[in-house]
Amino acid sequence: MKKLEDLQELISKAVTKLSFPLHPAELYEPLTYILSIGGKRMRPALLLMACDLFGGDVDEALAPALAIEVFHNFTLMHDDIMDNAPLRRGRTTVHEKWNQNVAILSGDVMLIEGYKLMMQVKDRLLRPILDIFNNTAVGVCEGQQIDMEFEQRTDVAINEYIKMIRLKTAVVLGGALKIGALIGGAEIKDAELLCNFGEHLGIAFQLQDDILDVYGDPEKFGKQVGGDIISNKKTYLLIKAFELADDKIASDLRALINKKDFDNEEKVKAVTDIYNELDIRQYAETEVHQYADKAFKALDEINLPEDHKQYLRDFADGLMVREN
Amino acid sequence: MKKLEDLQELISKAVTKLSFPLHPAELYEPLTYILSIGGKRMRPALLLMACDLFGGDVDEALAPALAIEVFHNFTLMHDDIMDNAPLRRGRTTVHEKWNQNVAILSGDVMLIEGYKLMMQVKDRLLRPILDIFNNTAVGVCEGQQIDMEFEQRTDVAINEYIKMIRLKTAVVLGGALKIGALIGGAEIKDAELLCNFGEHLGIAFQLQDDILDVYGDPEKFGKQVGGDIISNKKTYLLIKAFELADDKIASDLRALINKKDFDNEEKVKAVTDIYNELDIRQYAETEVHQYADKAFKALDEINLPEDHKQYLRDFADGLMVREN
Repeated sequence: MKKLEDLQELISKAVTKLSFPLHPAELYEPLTYILSIGGKRMRPALLLMACDLFGGDVDEALAPALAIEVFHNFTLMHDDIMDNAPLRRGRTTVHEKWNQNVAILSGDVMLIEGYKLMMQVKDRLLRPILDIFNNTAVGVCEGQQIDMEFEQRTDVAINEYIKMIRLKTAVVLGGALKIGALIGGAEIKDAELLCNFGEHLGIAFQLQDDILDVYGDPEKFGKQVGGDIISNKKTYLLIKAFELADDKIASDLRALINKKDFDNEEKVKAVTDIYNELDIRQYAETEVHQYADKAFKALDEINLPEDHKQYLRDFADGLMVREN
Repeated sequence: MKKLEDLQELISKAVTKLSFPLHPAELYEPLTYILSIGGKRMRPALLLMACDLFGGDVDEALAPALAIEVFHNFTLMHDDIMDNAPLRRGRTTVHEKWNQNVAILSGDVMLIEGYKLMMQVKDRLLRPILDIFNNTAVGVCEGQQIDMEFEQRTDVAINEYIKMIRLKTAVVLGGALKIGALIGGAEIKDAELLCNFGEHLGIAFQLQDDILDVYGDPEKFGKQVGGDIISNKKTYLLIKAFELADDKIASDLRALINKKDFDNEEKVKAVTDIYNELDIRQYAETEVHQYADKAFKALDEINLPEDHKQYLRDFADGLMVREN
């Protein structure tokens, strides 16, 4: 089995070789630009990994893997407009570097380029793979819409939150694995089990991310600790806290959220104290384990040699144990 | 052969029956809304017409025809944001009725829904039809980008203008005809000739539209006469006028364009006088006829019974002779 890092490296190199038309320059330059910003290339690497695990030729899965990366970056380009984000990974976002119209239209053509890359599969797999891609793409749009609606709402329930992160984050992981498995020669049943593995793992990963934002080791966790608290982001922790809080605590929490003038450190400490009082971290970790368990159960059922399954278990463990 | 009006009617009915998911409502309601605004449904009707002309079953072409209409409306939804347009056919645009983020994201999901509909073809045709659809979609994005760039430029040449209207308007007509022909059972060579017919006719039609804006009978022409002049739109007429003008006339024309405070009627008359002085109408009509001739030449070569070709000639004549 190929190492995940090697597959990520393979994708990174292939991304730099992706070429788009030269004209109109303002339409295509943003595609090359946003793809150059980088990232871990996890989604396309998972697609290659799935292909490899089922004994397929990784080269045959390269164009579809790039399709997933191009699609992912299309969503980033449009999400950055919607979120009014000036920076992505420290680099100027497309709508800031060019303008908003460029970011809309370049994003559109990027989605189409994603389809063109995804179509570079054998005829036999064209329809099933495009069906998966369509469902994945629709899911991501639905997830983004639900996420935007959450910003205006104060009554988000845990199950709604899980649905949102499943759509916005997890379905792409599941879809990438499923497509890779099919290219590798997997039976549809096994491809679907691998998809379930990916989706559940994706949810567990996102919940873990919510925990790490508050309880992560600042040395190891790449982001500012408490960033979600400072920006009042509706995470699992905040939603669960409101679910469990009595009137007094709920009103304290609401006051902290609505306060316009605050010291970041004090706010993070005050909200974390409430989380601690309500044992939120434990609830969240229980939920993480439940989704990880679901992922591992799906994995157990896949018809693959034991060492291949162990590879996936090790991958999942590596993904989840990021710091504590 | 089925009448074009009947095919347009068939599409109009099918559009009202298109159903999208109910949730998230803000994501999908704009799709139904913009599709309900209507229009002549010319693009999807042409797809059905092409299928019918080659002896195919129109029902089999219905989903791909709807795909073309859904795709077209996706481009309208995003173009309206880029153009900052408050109204479309007298109805509030999506970004005005909801907000800009909704219009971006609903447009994105609409493009994906277009692909889903376009995939409802026989396996044998899936790849060739999606290839045509991809090329069409990319062309429209390129055309829109070039059109936006024209707004900032003062040196647009006639051949650039023709390229822009070909991409922005004509390739969809050609693509729709080509897809319909293939579904109807046409040989690829004949489908391509029909595509050429559609593209050239589309260019001729757009040039005709530029002429009618200035010289059309206000009773018969649906828009305000001189609208392009009032808004300084770079049409064939304006570009040609700058090409032919001597220094004195060019400077007069530039003064009219740059004037901030003007009476609409006076401006239209002054610019039209310049067009008349330079015989711009004749140049434009010559160009219209050249593209119409190219369309008819492609048509002549198609392997279809003579009465079918006559049907297409009558259709083209009906399209071009709209008022004068």
